[in-house]
This record gives sequence, structure tokens and C-alpha cells, in this order.
Amino acid sequence: MSALSEGLTQLLIPVAALVGIGFALLQWFLVSRVKVSSKDSSNGYKQKLIEDDEEEEGINNLEVSIKCAEIQHAISVGATSFLFTEYKYLGIFMGVFGAIIFLFLGSVRGFSTKSEPCTYNQGNTCKPALANAFFSTVAFLLGAFTSVLSGFLGMKIATYANARTTLEARKGVGKAFITAFRSGTVMGFLLAANGLLVLYVSINLFKLYYGDDWEGLYESITGYGLGGSSMALFGRVGGGIYTKAADVGADLVGKVERNIPEDDPRNPAVIADNVGDNVGDIAGMGSDLFGSYAESSCAALFVASISSFGISHDFTAMSYPLIISSMGIVVCLITTLFATDLFEIKNVSEIEPSLKRQLLISTVLMTAGIAVVSFFALPSEFTLFNFGTEKEVKNWHLFFCVAIGLWAGLVIGYTTEYYTSNAYSPVQDVADSCRTGAATNVIFGLALGYKSVIIPIFAIAIAIYVSFSLAAMYGIAVAALGMLSTIATGLAIDAYGPISDNAGGIAEMAGMSHKIRERTDALDAAGNTTAAIGKGFAIGSAALVSLALFGAYVSRAGIKSVDLLTPKAFIGLIIGAMLPYWFSAMTMKSVGSAALKMVEEVRRQFNTIPGLIEGRAKPDYANCVKISTDASLREMIPPGALVMLTPLIAGTFFGVETLAGVLAGALVSGVQVAISASNTGGAWDNAKKYIEAGASEHARALGPKGSDCHKAAVIGDTIGDPLKDTSGPSLNILIKLMAVESLVFAPFFATHGGLLFKLL
Amino acid sequence: MSALSEGLTQLLIPVAALVGIGFALLQWFLVSRVKVSSKDSSNGYKQKLIEDDEEEEGINNLEVSIKCAEIQHAISVGATSFLFTEYKYLGIFMGVFGAIIFLFLGSVRGFSTKSEPCTYNQGNTCKPALANAFFSTVAFLLGAFTSVLSGFLGMKIATYANARTTLEARKGVGKAFITAFRSGTVMGFLLAANGLLVLYVSINLFKLYYGDDWEGLYESITGYGLGGSSMALFGRVGGGIYTKAADVGADLVGKVERNIPEDDPRNPAVIADNVGDNVGDIAGMGSDLFGSYAESSCAALFVASISSFGISHDFTAMSYPLIISSMGIVVCLITTLFATDLFEIKNVSEIEPSLKRQLLISTVLMTAGIAVVSFFALPSEFTLFNFGTEKEVKNWHLFFCVAIGLWAGLVIGYTTEYYTSNAYSPVQDVADSCRTGAATNVIFGLALGYKSVIIPIFAIAIAIYVSFSLAAMYGIAVAALGMLSTIATGLAIDAYGPISDNAGGIAEMAGMSHKIRERTDALDAAGNTTAAIGKGFAIGSAALVSLALFGAYVSRAGIKSVDLLTPKAFIGLIIGAMLPYWFSAMTMKSVGSAALKMVEEVRRQFNTIPGLIEGRAKPDYANCVKISTDASLREMIPPGALVMLTPLIAGTFFGVETLAGVLAGALVSGVQVAISASNTGGAWDNAKKYIEAGASEHARALGPKGSDCHKAAVIGDTIGDPLKDTSGPSLNILIKLMAVESLVFAPFFATHGGLLFKLL
Repeated sequence: MSALSEGLTQLLIPVAALVGIGFALLQWFLVSRVKVSSKDSSNGYKQKLIEDDEEEEGINNLEVSIKCAEIQHAISVGATSFLFTEYKYLGIFMGVFGAIIFLFLGSVRGFSTKSEPCTYNQGNTCKPALANAFFSTVAFLLGAFTSVLSGFLGMKIATYANARTTLEARKGVGKAFITAFRSGTVMGFLLAANGLLVLYVSINLFKLYYGDDWEGLYESITGYGLGGSSMALFGRVGGGIYTKAADVGADLVGKVERNIPEDDPRNPAVIADNVGDNVGDIAGMGSDLFGSYAESSCAALFVASISSFGISHDFTAMSYPLIISSMGIVVCLITTLFATDLFEIKNVSEIEPSLKRQLLISTVLMTAGIAVVSFFALPSEFTLFNFGTEKEVKNWHLFFCVAIGLWAGLVIGYTTEYYTSNAYSPVQDVADSCRTGAATNVIFGLALGYKSVIIPIFAIAIAIYVSFSLAAMYGIAVAALGMLSTIATGLAIDAYGPISDNAGGIAEMAGMSHKIRERTDALDAAGNTTAAIGKGFAIGSAALVSLALFGAYVSRAGIKSVDLLTPKAFIGLIIGAMLPYWFSAMTMKSVGSAALKMVEEVRRQFNTIPGLIEGRAKPDYANCVKISTDASLREMIPPGALVMLTPLIAGTFFGVETLAGVLAGALVSGVQVAISASNTGGAWDNAKKYIEAGASEHARALGPKGSDCHKAAVIGDTIGDPLKDTSGPSLNILIKLMAVESLVFAPFFATHGGLLFKLL
Repeated sequence: MSALSEGLTQLLIPVAALVGIGFALLQWFLVSRVKVSSKDSSNGYKQKLIEDDEEEEGINNLEVSIKCAEIQHAISVGATSFLFTEYKYLGIFMGVFGAIIFLFLGSVRGFSTKSEPCTYNQGNTCKPALANAFFSTVAFLLGAFTSVLSGFLGMKIATYANARTTLEARKGVGKAFITAFRSGTVMGFLLAANGLLVLYVSINLFKLYYGDDWEGLYESITGYGLGGSSMALFGRVGGGIYTKAADVGADLVGKVERNIPEDDPRNPAVIADNVGDNVGDIAGMGSDLFGSYAESSCAALFVASISSFGISHDFTAMSYPLIISSMGIVVCLITTLFATDLFEIKNVSEIEPSLKRQLLISTVLMTAGIAVVSFFALPSEFTLFNFGTEKEVKNWHLFFCVAIGLWAGLVIGYTTEYYTSNAYSPVQDVADSCRTGAATNVIFGLALGYKSVIIPIFAIAIAIYVSFSLAAMYGIAVAALGMLSTIATGLAIDAYGPISDNAGGIAEMAGMSHKIRERTDALDAAGNTTAAIGKGFAIGSAALVSLALFGAYVSRAGIKSVDLLTPKAFIGLIIGAMLPYWFSAMTMKSVGSAALKMVEEVRRQFNTIPGLIEGRAKPDYANCVKISTDASLREMIPPGALVMLTPLIAGTFFGVETLAGVLAGALVSGVQVAISASNTGGAWDNAKKYIEAGASEHARALGPKGSDCHKAAVIGDTIGDPLKDTSGPSLNILIKLMAVESLVFAPFFATHGGLLFKLL
């Protein structure tokens, strides 16, 4: 048995979660000490002026500070109202899909309320399938709710922090950095701790009913992952379409046609653009990573429940995934202090290294943490289920599985940084190719994205091979958890990006000086890279998670092998590999069409509102917000339906083998499309920023803003928008969501699936 | 036994091949009746004037006709000299790789010269492994030679026909169409008939040694496919880089910067561009489709040799794949008459329907042909090898297998046409998106390409499922052959494209009137679509071929299942799925870099040669030809090495299971990348042509040439160039070449492979 007693485990997990929440609230408090003033007291902002001893440019300029508060308010109201509208639709979806889960799973044994012999724990009696159907539905709803909550809280803190970052930028780049980073930390810790806490509480509550039936208990808990990821899908797709329709529309008319700067307040789409950053990059990404975390935990728990942990009822060993996450929270807490308290940013050039250091520190500390957890929480030897056979595993084997996942994540993060940061030659080459126009820029950018998949894929492959060889599918699941164990830090540096982007937007709109704008631009450029790193993590972990879920699904469906030499599996594989393309076609077309509408509206306003271009009249922001809202809500349905229906159709009509093929195909193809799309987009964005910043001789030769080179770079940046913020990051949800959905519905498919082949 | 006697089979196959060659020569003779004059008799052109009764514009203009002859001569000389340089490199490669084949395969039994017990035909004695090594090497060299010959002959007829098409365009669009189409026919028939004849003769010669050992005989023959495809790889990649470096370079300076029309003689890269069409789109594609044909024949023959056909020595049934191809030649011959003699093109709008009709007619006729062959050449019942088990098959099962491949090809062809022809809404939507600039054009174009994979993948999946279910891997192999059975027609309409493209270029360079240029443009627009259709066929057939080769490889390596639940196979799968991206990154970057050099050279000439832009001085064409030549020869090596070395490394170090995973991954991922890349490129090209032609109210609203819309469309077209003509079409070779290489080396990998895992 494990060295750690059950009682202590039951204590440590919730304590770690509560510490995480407390730390998040502390950071929020620290951010809130930056005061934002507003003329109008009715909107709830405090009436105080900025109170600070250091005197820098415009620090006591009440006008500017009021303007910032107003803009922040407008963004916050826009984002909140969009999310509430979105949640109304998602509420309907949750109801309908919850009913489907209950009906499909309930029908497995014809809605019988009789207990049944267990599948794996032979000789024992398990709870009826109807109970599993009910608890799966409850877990689904809980997961969906937690996912939505994670996204919403992230959006709230982001829209609370953006103007504060702008105001702090007047005091220097270090202050602004700390504000943006602390805000990201709030989101990271709230999400990681909440996800852990809800999961922990649910398991304990479900246990009141299930008692000794751990098979049924952890089977039902997988609904939590499904709920989390299905909300993430709509969040990412809806938010992604919203933000990019606005961004592309704003850029095409503003930057290209009218030659006004980015985020210029005269541009009618500018508020929609800033709202979009918060609903897409923040809320969408929050839901996404929460989904990954929930799924990898569920996959690990499910696989563990049918291993010797489950059979011998070793609660501590069973909770190994949760203890790893608890340790992760503690490690990330220490890591955060390195950025906020132990070092100070004094120069623009220190921002990116500081963020990169966060990754490295958390990885090194976590490696030690994993060793501790593996030693205390696991028995020194145990058996794992391996598709019909059993596998002897030692505790240090699991240490290697988690650690290799963690380090593979670091490799992916650093590779992503290399390919998307303008400090290195790949992005500089792309910028250089703008000399011959937009076409070569696009060709080089696409080639860069394709190339950037090589190292991450090898890292993932090695992680898969090692963890699979050591501990079968359980090894993959905990490797995924390892990659996600530092999620709080990952999310912090990821959320930092859109917050800085918004801060820059607010500085521009509030008419702050060029100097301030330069500082926020530097924050933003680092943010582009960290956002790309965050996407790299999300994709890499999604690959491991969905493989773990795939393994769990295969186990649950009672398949002994997925043999490519059978036509059923092979056609599944090739069609699965096609799905990411179908999905991307839908989302990119949606962004394109919505952007066209936005362009027309922005042009219309410029043409019909007298004095707008001269800055004498105000544009109608609300109309642009409405276009983005309508487009995203309407257009998120078809891609959402594609992802949600494919497993149901494949499983019901073509059976479990074809579905297994579909999952494997979507996984191996989707990972490549997702990585290349998000890195290509990130590289174009930073190539443009490289030319704009003009920090080197080479960059100055290509610039300045408005030169032919720069125009070519802007075209690349615009093309990259839907790639990096809509289709790319949604693909990792496609991969894992189809896998977790298959896992949840596996009992149904195994019993009633493959109708078409049965008929033939 | 089969109804058709062995003697008759031995007669029919060579006769069909000779009829095909005769028909090709007849068409060549008909094309040669269009006379091209030249001032200078020393270059070998006949001194006659155009002799015709119809008098149209400029028909007796000796000057124009002399100019055409000169340009044609320059293109022909450039293409021939490039190909000869390329062949010198390929000769070295052939020697080295031939030696590798001999050494690797010879080492399987330690270079022993003793006969051995057969693997499948148990109880009998087979020839030594050393003999197989020797004959595989010979077959490899024969395949390589035939492939090179196919490409070279295609290039010769194309550069013979392009000026003739231009001159005929003066008499009307119908005459020009017939000339271009007949020339395509020459290439199609020469290639199909040559491929069949060499294979047939080789089998009969090899049989003199092998006698009753059909296992060894057909194992060695697979070298023919490897030789064919490895030449095709370098042809496609080298030719693709050549043509697109020139094309992109010419367009970027000419069309975008200097605002001079396409193919303007003042542009220094214009000759290189036209040479490129012939070495890339013609010679490269000829080698490619020859490779597919050779591989599918070899895969089918190998699988058949270890079935009851081979065991019971039924030569006619064994030769079923060759008889299908023979029937294909006859069917295509009849089909051609519909275009050249039974119907006449009078109007521009009839061109595309006429080419489409070719596809439909050949498919319908061939369906009947397949039924006849299946009935007469096969026993009514027989057994096939199915990975360790045996499968009972009836002759009408095989009819369905071949037919479904054939019809899947038609579906792919028509889908490609729908997505790349400017007669339908997808391309028109892309053109429309140019209103908001290049960025939306690119976004819509990428989305179109992604979307265009859906139907082809379903068609391929259904073909795989049906043919696999009916006749295991043999079914897949003959389905691939079915798709390629109308290769002569497919190639004819495919080669028609670059010939028309060149004809347009010559018209422009010779300074012919706007009216003539309009006619050649219409031919060319249809050619873009048929080129995309040809690529669709090449990719679709490559998918089936490589699956068949994969099956043959698995059989030969003695693997009983490729189970994705083993880490070895899964990491192979995910890395295999990454290879198309790695490969595309290399080829696109190569085109980009070479194009940058070309741009610099063209700019240099415009800036330093006085009077060039005014048309008073001649540019230095040779320098641009040299840049393309050097770039393509240098840059084709890394992607070539990637493809050729991957199976060797994976098989030798990681073993047969991982290699099986790599092949499956590359197949399912590469097909998608290839289809989407070539359709995106085709769509952009035709969107541009749609705006230029201004045939509808909508198109005129977007145009004319030089408008902002048109400029955006030109950027899309330029980006599409490497996608559709370099990386896209090379990918199908990557897929099938790795598979055939694995098949040839399978005995080595099975004996000595997996070194790394053996060490661990």
C-alpha cells in the first residue's frame, strides 16, 4: 500500500486547492490596488485618483485615467453581455446533450434498475447501468458548469486588469508587466484549483452512492471531462470567430485602406476587437485548458480504477492524478514568486526571458515534486490493466511517465518560442521575405509553420513511447497530467498576452503618448510568443490526453486491438484524418464571411458618419459588436455539430472499431494542422511587430510602418488571425472532445453500435 | 482456370501495347502537319510556310510564325538541357541506390547462393535471396529508365506542340484545342503503352531464370515500381522547384512591380517560366503517373503471386492487372476519337465540357471493359492471401473492386473540377473575397482547399472498404489499377494544360493580337482545371496504390496485424503523419528562396539593361534559366533524401511495426495535405483568370486587370504556385514511394530490422 494514508490524502488535496484559490485572491487584491478612476460613479468604479509617489509622464492626468476607465468599462460590458448570450445557447445545449447522455447510457441495459456483475472486478456486483447514466449526466453538467465558470472568471479578471496595466505602463515597463502577469496568475490559479476542487468533491459525493463500486464511480466521473471540453469547444470556436471577425475587419479597413493605426478609437470595430480578445483568447482558452486538465484526470482515474488500485481499493494510489495536480499548484505558487517578487523587470528586453524562465523553473521544481508524490502516494509495485493483459509496474516507472510528459511540454514550449519569437531567425526570415511582397511572406510563413511541427511531434512520440512502454495507457494519461501539472503557470503567462494586447489598445484609444504605447507594444510582442507557447502546450497535452482517452475508450468498449489491416479501422483512420480539414474549412470560412460583413459596416460608417475620420464624431461601436456576436453564435453551430455528432454517428452506425480509427486519425492529423496553424499565425504577427518595432538594422531596413514591406507583413498577420486564434486552437478540442465523448458513450456503442455493418 | 488461354494472353498484352504506341505516333504525325517556320534553316525546322485554305488574321504573317518557331526552339533547348543535367544527377543516384538495394537484399541470407524453401508456396523450393537481390536491382533500373523516358518523351512532344497550338489559334479555338489535345494524347498513350510493354517484357525475361518460382519473380518485379517512383520524386520536386521559382519570380517583378503582362518578352524570367512548365508539369507529372501505374501493377502482381493464382500457376489470371491495362489502352483510344473526330469545338465555352466528357466516356466504356476482362481472364472462383488467412473470392467480386476504383476516380475528378473551375461558386466566392484584399482571398482559398478534401476522402474510403471487404489487399491493388486504367485519357487532358499555357506564353512573346491571346487564355483556363483534375487522380490513385503496397509490405514482412494499441506502431503513425509537413516545409522554402534570387536577378536586369522596359533591348534569359536550374538541382536533394531515407532508417532501427505505422500515417495525412494544397492553388489561379476574363457581370465588377481586386488575386495565385505545382503533387510520390521502398526492402527489415529496440 501507499506510504501516504487515506486520511492524509483526503486532507491534502482540498487544502492544496484552497491554497491555490487563496493565492489567486491575494493576487487579485494586489492588482486591485492600482486604481482606475471614472467620472461617472454610477458604473461602480471607485472615484479615487491614482495614488502613487513616483511621478512620471501624465501620471496625474485625470482625463487620461478617466478615459481608460471608460474604455475598460465598455470592453467589460461587451464581453460580459456576449458571454451571457453565449451561455444561454450553451444552457440549451447542455440540457439537450445531458438528456442524450442519460438516454443512450440508460438504454445499455434497457433502463434496468438491477445491479449487475462488474466487468473488470470479477465476482463482485456493480451498480446498474441506469445509475451510471444518471451520474455521468450529473458529472457532465458539473464539468460544463466549471468550464464556463473558469472562462468567465478569466474574462472578468482580464477586463479588470487591462486598463490597470495601461495606467501602470506610465510608471515603467516593469510595473505594467507585474500587473499583467499577476492578473494572468489569478486566472491560472483559480482555474487549476477550482478544477481540482470540484472534481475532488464530486468523487467524494458520488462515492456516497457507489460505495465499493469504483468501476462505476470513475466511469461516471468521465462525464466531467466531457462537460468541460464540450463547453470549451463552443467557447473556443464562438470566441475565436468573434475576436477574429472583429480583428480582421478592423485591420482591413483601418490599417490597409484608411491608413490609421491599430486600435485607433475612430475605427468602429475597435471595441469589438478588444472584447474579442477577452472572450476568445481568455475565456475560450480558459475553458480549453480546463477541459484538457479535466479529461486527463478523468482518463487517468478511469484507467486506474480497472487496475490493481481500483481492485484493492487503495484510495491514495487511486488519487495519484489528483495529488500530482495538488503538488502542481504548490510548485506554481513558488514559481510565480520568481516573476513577481524575486526578480524585477527593468527593461523591455527582459520580459520574454522572464516569462521563459517561469516555464523552466516550474518544470525543474515540478520534477522534484513528482518524485516526492510518486514515492509517497504509490505502492512500490502494482499491476495495471493493458488491453486484456496485466502489466507489472513500479512506482519509479510512473515518476518517469509523468516527468517525460512534463519535459516534453517544456520542449514544445521552447520550440514554439523559437519559431514564433522575433528574436530568432525563423521569424526574421519571414519578415525579410516581405521585401518581395505579401506572396513570399505567406509562402515563407506557411513553410515555417510546417517546419515547426517536427520537434514537437518527436517530443510527443518519445513521451508516448516511454510512458506507454513503462505503464501502458495509464502511463500516457499521467504523462498528459505531467504536461498539465504546471497549468497554473502556463495559463498565467498565456493570459498575460491578451491582457497586454488590450492594454495597448486602451493606451491607443485613450490617446496616451507614443512612449506608453511602445511599452505596451513590447509587452504585447512577448504576449504573442507566450500565447503561441500556451497554444503549443494546449495542443501537445491534447495529443497525450486524447491518446489516453482513446486507450480508456478502447478498454471500455472491450476492443483488444485496433488493427489497420482491417478495412473498418482503416477507413475510420483516413476519415478521421480528414476531419481537422473539414473543421478548419468551416471555421476559417466563418471568420472570412463575418469579417467581410464587418468590413462593409466599418466602410459604411466611415463613408456615412461625417467627421469620423477627422476624429470629430464618434463611431457606432455597438453595431460592430452586434455583427461579431451574431456571426459567432450562428457560425459556431456547424463546426460544433461536426465534432459532437461524428463520434455518435461513427459509433452507432459503423461500430467501435471504425470509431477507434476515426479517433486515431483525427489525433495524428489534427495535431499537425493545429501546431502549424498556430505557429504560422504567431510568426506572421511577430514578423509584423518586428518590422514595426525596428529594433535592429535589418528591421529598420524593412520598415517603417506604412512601407511596402510593412503592408505585406500586415497581410500575413491578417491571414494568420483565423489560423492562430480560431481554427488552430479549436482543433485540439476537436481531438480530445471526440475521444472523451467516445469514452463516455463506449458502453452504448459496445452494446448497440455498428448498425450499418450489422444490416449489411 | 481462366477462359482466356495463356497463349492468347501472351499475344493480347503486347499487341495492345503496340496499338497504343502506334496510335500515339499517328497523333504525333497529325500534330506535325501544322508547320512551324523559321528563318534559320540550321536549327532543323522545316522551311515551309503555313499552308491552309482558311484565311484569318495574320495567317500569312511570316514574321509571327518565325518568332513562334524561335521561341519554341528556345524553350525546347532549355528544357532538354535542364533534363539532361538532371538526368546526370539521377544517373549517379540510380547507381548508388541500385547498389544499396543489391547489398541490403543480398545480405538477407548472407549472400548465400543456395536455393531455399518458399515462404508461401510451401513444400516447394525457391531461388536464393541473392538472385532476388540481383533481379530487384535490374527491375529498379528498368523502372527508373522507363520513368525517365516517359517524362522526356512527354516534354519533347509538349515543346513540339506549343508553338503549333499558338499558330493554330489564329484559325480558331477549335483548331488550337485539337492540336493541344492531340499532343497530350501522344504523351498519354506513349506512357501507358511503354509502361505496360516494358513490364510485360521484363516479366517474361525474368521468367527465363525464375521458371516455377513465381514468388521470387514477382517479388523482384516490385523493383520496377520503386525505380519508376524514385525518378518521379526527383522529377516532380526538381521540376516543381524549377518551374515555380521562375513563375513566382517572373510574376513578382513583372506583374506586381513593373505592371507588365504575364509572359511579356521583356521579362527576363519568361523563358525559364515556360521551360519550367515543360520540365515540371509535363516531365514531372509523366514520371509521377508512370510511377503510380508501375506500382499498382507491381503491388497487384505481388499479392497475386502469393494467392492461388501463383500457387496453381495460372498465368492468365496472374496477368489480370496487365490485361486490365491493355483493355484501358483500347478504351482510351476509342474515347480520344470523341474529342478529336466525333465532336468539334466551335466555342470557348465548349472546351471544358469536352474535356470533362472525356473522363465520363472513358469511365463508362472501361466499366464494360472491366466486366469483359474479369469474366474471361479470371477463374470463376479462387482464393486470395489475407494476412495469414485465406479468402474465397469470385470473379465478379474483382469486377466490383476494379470498377469502384475507376468510379471513385471519376468522383474525385469531378469534385476537383467543381472546386477549381471558375464556372462554379467556390472559385467565384474566392474571387469575390478579393474585394477586401489579398488577406481574405488567402483565407477563403485555404478554406476552399480544406473543404475540397471531404468528398474525395469519402470516395477513397468507400473504395477501400468495398474492395478490401471483397478481395482483401488484392482488391485494393486492383481498385488502384482501375482508377489508373484510363491513364492515357487522364494524362492527355492533363498534359493539355501546360501545352496550352505555353501556347499562350508564345502568343504573348511573339506579339500576337489580343484576340489570339484570348483564345489561348481560354484554353489555358480549362487547362488549369484539367491539371487540377489530373493531380486529383494522381493523389487518389496514390492513396490506393500506397495502401496496396502497404498491404503487400505487411505480407512480405510477415506482420499479422498493425495494432495502434502498441507504442511502436502508434509513434510510427504520428511521425508518419508529420512527414508531409516536413516535406512541404522543405519544398516551399526552396521555392521561396529560389524565387527571391530570381526576383533579384530580374530586378537587376530591369535596372541595369538600358531600354529593356521600353522593349528596345533584349533581356538575358540564360541567367534566369541558370538560377532555376541551379536552385532546383540543389534543393531537390534534401526532400528527396527525407523520402528515400525515412523507410530505411525506420525499418533498420525501429523495425517493421514502426515502419508500418509510418506508412499508414504518411498516407492518411499526406492525402489531405496534397488534395487541399493542389485545389487551393488551382482555385486561386482560376479566380485570377475569372477576374481577368471578365465574362460575367460579377467578374467585370471585380476587374479589370490592374485593379485592386486583381492585384489581390495575383497575390493568391503566386502563393498557390508552390502549393499546387511543387509541394502538393510531390506529396503523392512521398506516400507511395515510401510504401514501395518498404516493400522492396521488407525481407531485409524482417531479418535485420529494429536494431534500436533490440539493443534496449
